[in-house]
Amino acid sequence: MRLVVIGGVAAGLSAAARARRLDPSLEIIVLERGRHVSWAACGLPYFIEGQVRSVEQLTVYTAEYLSRERNIQVRTETEATAISHGRREVALRGGERIRYDKLVIATGASPDQGALEPGERVFTLTTLEETERLGRWLSERRPRTAAVVGAGYIGLEAATALRARGLRVTIFEAAPEVLGREDPELTEWTRKHLERFGVELRLRTRVPEVGGFDLVVLGSGVKPNSGLAMEAGIEIGRTGAIRVTERMETNLTSVYAAGDCAETTHLVTGAPAYIPLGTTANKMGRVAGANAAGRRERFPGVTGTSLVRVCGIAIGLSGLSIAQARRAGFEPVSARIEHADKASYFRGRPCAVELVADRRTRRLLGGAVVGENEVAGRVNTIAAALTARLTVDAFEHLDLAYAPPYSPVWDPLLIAAQQLMKLLD
Amino acid sequence: MRLVVIGGVAAGLSAAARARRLDPSLEIIVLERGRHVSWAACGLPYFIEGQVRSVEQLTVYTAEYLSRERNIQVRTETEATAISHGRREVALRGGERIRYDKLVIATGASPDQGALEPGERVFTLTTLEETERLGRWLSERRPRTAAVVGAGYIGLEAATALRARGLRVTIFEAAPEVLGREDPELTEWTRKHLERFGVELRLRTRVPEVGGFDLVVLGSGVKPNSGLAMEAGIEIGRTGAIRVTERMETNLTSVYAAGDCAETTHLVTGAPAYIPLGTTANKMGRVAGANAAGRRERFPGVTGTSLVRVCGIAIGLSGLSIAQARRAGFEPVSARIEHADKASYFRGRPCAVELVADRRTRRLLGGAVVGENEVAGRVNTIAAALTARLTVDAFEHLDLAYAPPYSPVWDPLLIAAQQLMKLLD
Repeated sequence: MRLVVIGGVAAGLSAAARARRLDPSLEIIVLERGRHVSWAACGLPYFIEGQVRSVEQLTVYTAEYLSRERNIQVRTETEATAISHGRREVALRGGERIRYDKLVIATGASPDQGALEPGERVFTLTTLEETERLGRWLSERRPRTAAVVGAGYIGLEAATALRARGLRVTIFEAAPEVLGREDPELTEWTRKHLERFGVELRLRTRVPEVGGFDLVVLGSGVKPNSGLAMEAGIEIGRTGAIRVTERMETNLTSVYAAGDCAETTHLVTGAPAYIPLGTTANKMGRVAGANAAGRRERFPGVTGTSLVRVCGIAIGLSGLSIAQARRAGFEPVSARIEHADKASYFRGRPCAVELVADRRTRRLLGGAVVGENEVAGRVNTIAAALTARLTVDAFEHLDLAYAPPYSPVWDPLLIAAQQLMKLLD
Repeated sequence: MRLVVIGGVAAGLSAAARARRLDPSLEIIVLERGRHVSWAACGLPYFIEGQVRSVEQLTVYTAEYLSRERNIQVRTETEATAISHGRREVALRGGERIRYDKLVIATGASPDQGALEPGERVFTLTTLEETERLGRWLSERRPRTAAVVGAGYIGLEAATALRARGLRVTIFEAAPEVLGREDPELTEWTRKHLERFGVELRLRTRVPEVGGFDLVVLGSGVKPNSGLAMEAGIEIGRTGAIRVTERMETNLTSVYAAGDCAETTHLVTGAPAYIPLGTTANKMGRVAGANAAGRRERFPGVTGTSLVRVCGIAIGLSGLSIAQARRAGFEPVSARIEHADKASYFRGRPCAVELVADRRTRRLLGGAVVGENEVAGRVNTIAAALTARLTVDAFEHLDLAYAPPYSPVWDPLLIAAQQLMKLLD
């Protein structure tokens, strides 16, 4: 029995590793188009920032390691050009064909940069090679100004990293908001915060005149690499990504898809969603690998959690903003508070929380947390509540941890819930 | 209409403040036995440590402020000695009687010190006065050795504070475990951690010979001040604390109880529990105040969350340990893992997580988190999951936040859940 995995980064290698653990006798072949497998894409901005010393630190496993220690055959610089499911074959560039019994498609996503293309002074942060090239450019050419295209998390991380390297940075975002979240207050807060650090944010602005800047980093969204699947007759969802069941099955028997090339379900709206993130890719990959190895596992979906550091502040989101909730058919109400994140005598720092709930069902629909400390944990608490479909009434009484060095006696989450309760009365 | 509140700290003042907000016309009288109201008891160890400069920093509101700004009449050094519910009267020491329409009992708890009594070299950390006396003793007498009685969170915080002041500290605990949690591994971990900081932990050891130490701090458990209620014919639960409904009602009409003198429900076992903590006291007080003011609110209970800093490390707990789960009739399974709490290139620190689940229902029953960063948030995520009765299957797929400066791509919580899933197969 042979499992072929197309794609050797997060989802692909999670699938391969899980399948191996569950079935030591399975033959596993991973096909990776690039030179490296298993690298931490999320770490690339931190290489630019100087936090990561060499790109080798971002390479989790090598092809040699996986072959020797895990009995997973990894072929890098090997591009799958077609899937012929009738013959159970993957065609490779160069003409070779590889037979499969089970197939996991984990082809990832590509930068969706619009008009600008990477070039001499134009970089992406999507591959180790490009990131190294940008790193060298920064050291050798000592540029003074940078344009960042996109105010999603990649753009904001890139801007933070370039600012930390001393450049004057301007972010250009086509949408009227940051982080793809229809939330004017969050956007305004972010704009002011960036300004304080000398980073300019220009919203509703398309590609800048490259000429005006020493370098340009393309950090806008990504689009799923679903072409290979589509040509093989695999169903594509309305989001443009591969449609999969909870078991990561495509519409073709024994063919699974996982990671940034596939859709998932948004647990708050119940609708298909395309939210490509490393955490989700790993989870989907694990489940695809388990099912390909003969188990029956499911991945129910995501609550749309994300976390980004912007000039020293963490912004965490989960679920829906009030505008997104309204568009999804809810009758949303929202409360926004700011409170110290520790007991006063421990010099608490401001922590802003917004919670969104549905007026009819009182169900929590989303939340945003902005602050210096324990933002991840607060967003995770919201994510757990969203997954469990807790009402604000239940959320308000959550038995959250308190100790003066770590939190105030009323956690900002609970203060926000109390405010929201008043609006639901 | 007059509301009388017996007790002016966490639960009592939360009740009074909430009732005032909901009903501006209510007459509200708070009777407080001590000299101060509304002080942060949880901050006392940090005064000893030197983190808090003066006990005034721990006083949230004064009686004058509450009277002037909130129209809440506060009488300090005023002890209620009897409740005569037939006449709707509270008798005070000295003979005065105060009529009430609604009564909230928030008499708190007292140290349960066993044989040792506070004295010249023997201190508690339960009042501002005692804490100031200990602070003066430390500055003036410069003691070199201290015994701490009790390895609950007060004892551990006291030991941490005294060690930070340079004393050699020995903790004496009558039970075989720390933090009242039947968890031998957590106890052994804590013992070793304390040892590394020069603090000795002696378990299964009753009151020490006071003579061997320069000073003794009594930091063992507390018992509910339920005598006043009991003598008035108010029902006491099996825990020894006042029995209340979800609305904080006692068995007497219009008489509520809240805070450290009252029971609550453990949401994992469904049984009455006595877990006196400031956070719970505030929540119960708020609900008691709301209902006394004519609303209908409920406080469903707690998941037994606690958090303590022990020599630089946070220990967070929620729900049941495996031994507690077994005793509550579950068929518990537990997984314990240790993992870095951030991406490796952000120099993650070790974070240990234990998760406990029921084999039959696969429901999560409890968890423990030990580490330096984001422990509160991880425990809160567990608390939310326990409140919502999530299964490990759902917990394993939680959409937790990830960004390299704050967390690893697989959060330690999810790694622990994956381990637990293997044991449930």
